[in-house]
Amino acid sequence: MATQAVIKVAALCGSLREASYHRGLLHAAMEICNDSINGMEIECVDISSLPFTNEDLEVNGTYPDAVEVFRKKIEKADCFLFASPEYNYSVTGPLKNAIDWASRPPNVWADKAAAIVSAGANFGGGRSHYHLRQIGIYIDLHFINKPELFVFAFESPPKFDSNGVLIDEEIKQRLRAVLLALQAFALRLKGKSQ
Amino acid sequence: MATQAVIKVAALCGSLREASYHRGLLHAAMEICNDSINGMEIECVDISSLPFTNEDLEVNGTYPDAVEVFRKKIEKADCFLFASPEYNYSVTGPLKNAIDWASRPPNVWADKAAAIVSAGANFGGGRSHYHLRQIGIYIDLHFINKPELFVFAFESPPKFDSNGVLIDEEIKQRLRAVLLALQAFALRLKGKSQ
Amino acid sequence: MATQAVIKVAALCGSLREASYHRGLLHAAMEICNDSINGMEIECVDISSLPFTNEDLEVNGTYPDAVEVFRKKIEKADCFLFASPEYNYSVTGPLKNAIDWASRPPNVWADKAAAIVSAGANFGGGRSHYHLRQIGIYIDLHFINKPELFVFAFESPPKFDSNGVLIDEEIKQRLRAVLLALQAFALRLKGKSQ
Amino acid sequence: MATQAVIKVAALCGSLREASYHRGLLHAAMEICNDSINGMEIECVDISSLPFTNEDLEVNGTYPDAVEVFRKKIEKADCFLFASPEYNYSVTGPLKNAIDWASRPPNVWADKAAAIVSAGANFGGGRSHYHLRQIGIYIDLHFINKPELFVFAFESPPKFDSNGVLIDEEIKQRLRAVLLALQAFALRLKGKSQ
Repeated sequence: MATQAVIKVAALCGSLREASYHRGLLHAAMEICNDSINGMEIECVDISSLPFTNEDLEVNGTYPDAVEVFRKKIEKADCFLFASPEYNYSVTGPLKNAIDWASRPPNVWADKAAAIVSAGANFGGGRSHYHLRQIGIYIDLHFINKPELFVFAFESPPKFDSNGVLIDEEIKQRLRAVLLALQAFALRLKGKSQ
Repeated sequence: MATQAVIKVAALCGSLREASYHRGLLHAAMEICNDSINGMEIECVDISSLPFTNEDLEVNGTYPDAVEVFRKKIEKADCFLFASPEYNYSVTGPLKNAIDWASRPPNVWADKAAAIVSAGANFGGGRSHYHLRQIGIYIDLHFINKPELFVFAFESPPKFDSNGVLIDEEIKQRLRAVLLALQAFALRLKGKSQ
Repeated sequence: MATQAVIKVAALCGSLREASYHRGLLHAAMEICNDSINGMEIECVDISSLPFTNEDLEVNGTYPDAVEVFRKKIEKADCFLFASPEYNYSVTGPLKNAIDWASRPPNVWADKAAAIVSAGANFGGGRSHYHLRQIGIYIDLHFINKPELFVFAFESPPKFDSNGVLIDEEIKQRLRAVLLALQAFALRLKGKSQ
Repeated sequence: MATQAVIKVAALCGSLREASYHRGLLHAAMEICNDSINGMEIECVDISSLPFTNEDLEVNGTYPDAVEVFRKKIEKADCFLFASPEYNYSVTGPLKNAIDWASRPPNVWADKAAAIVSAGANFGGGRSHYHLRQIGIYIDLHFINKPELFVFAFESPPKFDSNGVLIDEEIKQRLRAVLLALQAFALRLKGKSQ
């Protein structure tokens, strides 16, 4: 019996709020992955303790300690799951800050698959996706095209409880479909069929 | 003799590096303004000591001290000059972070004029402009359309010295044209002719 | 009694379908304008009989007849209302084609106010707005920031009848608010208060 | 001796001008491909005789003849090369029009690799790339991330002759690198190594 390659996913949450819906999406993704997806592991990577990006902090080709720790986690991942809130029609500052640190040489995002999920009013966080995808061109991410997941967070029935826990079964199924597409695309880019 | 309205410009630098070309652009803008533009004052507003945006830090409708200080400076400005580097095809994390803090209620950017300048390789920082302009829609900025200033920082003759000081006279003239267009648009939006 | 300036609006529909929801939005806008907005006139400008943009068709600084007719209508307008469907996450080909013809020298869009409305599934046509706004930078349009109107065309209650006629009263009120904001911004840019 | 898969490329030119630099880029690409790339064939697909997109022209699930011919060529291609001029900070009307016709059901672009090249003043056509990439999300194209090719058409030495023929050897090498990356990505997505 052949062993299946395990795809390691680094998950990043663009919001720093404790009860963030985006954190809720990532926790749900981890639960779904544990429960019903073989060959895939998701680890949440903290971005809140990074300093602001500033090349003056790079000394002799080394990065501040928190940055080195963060970069290691990005480097060892096979692909990425971004929970990317829309703040003022774009990505959040802390998320962009983290992305930029890991793009410093050597760019540890390069040539890996990625997917985006979001929640919010209006477009469900959608505008952040397209900015993030443009960022991905330069750091050389390969985003899945479909499915896209925009959770209309304030429509009824409620999607999250007051702690930010995802409670909507249909959204969970759609989130699972994103994860499966991400896994399939990561394997495809690695030259492995499922 | 009529007194002319003085247009107050808050200038934000998206890079935190000491010798940043973007800081150089803002210093040149201040010098040009002092030397040869009547009725306009530019103040650089620091964004480096803000915390990461996080609604959990908002308590009873108040913001952390550094945020309150920053918001006051944005509030009292008539218009804005962004020196916006392109990091990975978008705006920088620290700049987005600052923008988002000042957009929290009440949004202190609202209904004011703005302009963007940048420097860099390739498109001279140009891709950051269009993301910043999309951000501006929601926070209700009115960007000047023309002239746009993208400094091709690595073409000869040199544009900046090793301290990031702008030394190119033609770029200074183009920067001056941006400032005059910003002043004119700010006055026009206020219903005042020059 | 002072005479009020009449703001002339040229309205463009990005869809060529007879029963297009976007045509329905423009017809509703004309009706609302006639019924309840003073000092504003809307004229729909046809874009379906233009040839494809092609500089080879420009001879001795003149344009094909259909283009000249179109350009005249854009030139005499004070501001613009775009009904811009989202086709494949951007504006439609016919609309882009029309915009480009009127931008040929002299650019007859320049320095005028504009607003966008759209209808559709998902984001209600929203992605087309941000591409159109980026186009507007170069042709020097000043878009209103707020309100934005994205009609979620397939939610209940029905928004349009089978002929594409807008039948939803709440959307009509929101469309009216767009028109009033466009009128106010056009007057403000002209240095006239309402 | 194993036979190598031949990757068929459909090439689309966004400009309809005879002496277009973009046509010149595609002709150069075909020449380079014939001369020095094994396993790849490029065919230029005309977009100038398509009607404007209009669902009213779709009758009983069939498209106008010119559209059917165009769609067949897109369908049988393995991947795509877009020569995409920047008109007013976005893609051209004729190109968008063609893209939209081929996206009608069944979407014949789906799940294939693509690359973009452009020439122009300023950013060398660059702004069109990012709009085209956003369009690509919905029609399910997988764009190569690197290399990007923006030809700064008006810098010296001259890049094109007066007939639009590419005459710059360095640009030819960069164009060749785009073609090789497109071929490699198309093979990778098909699960074939080179």
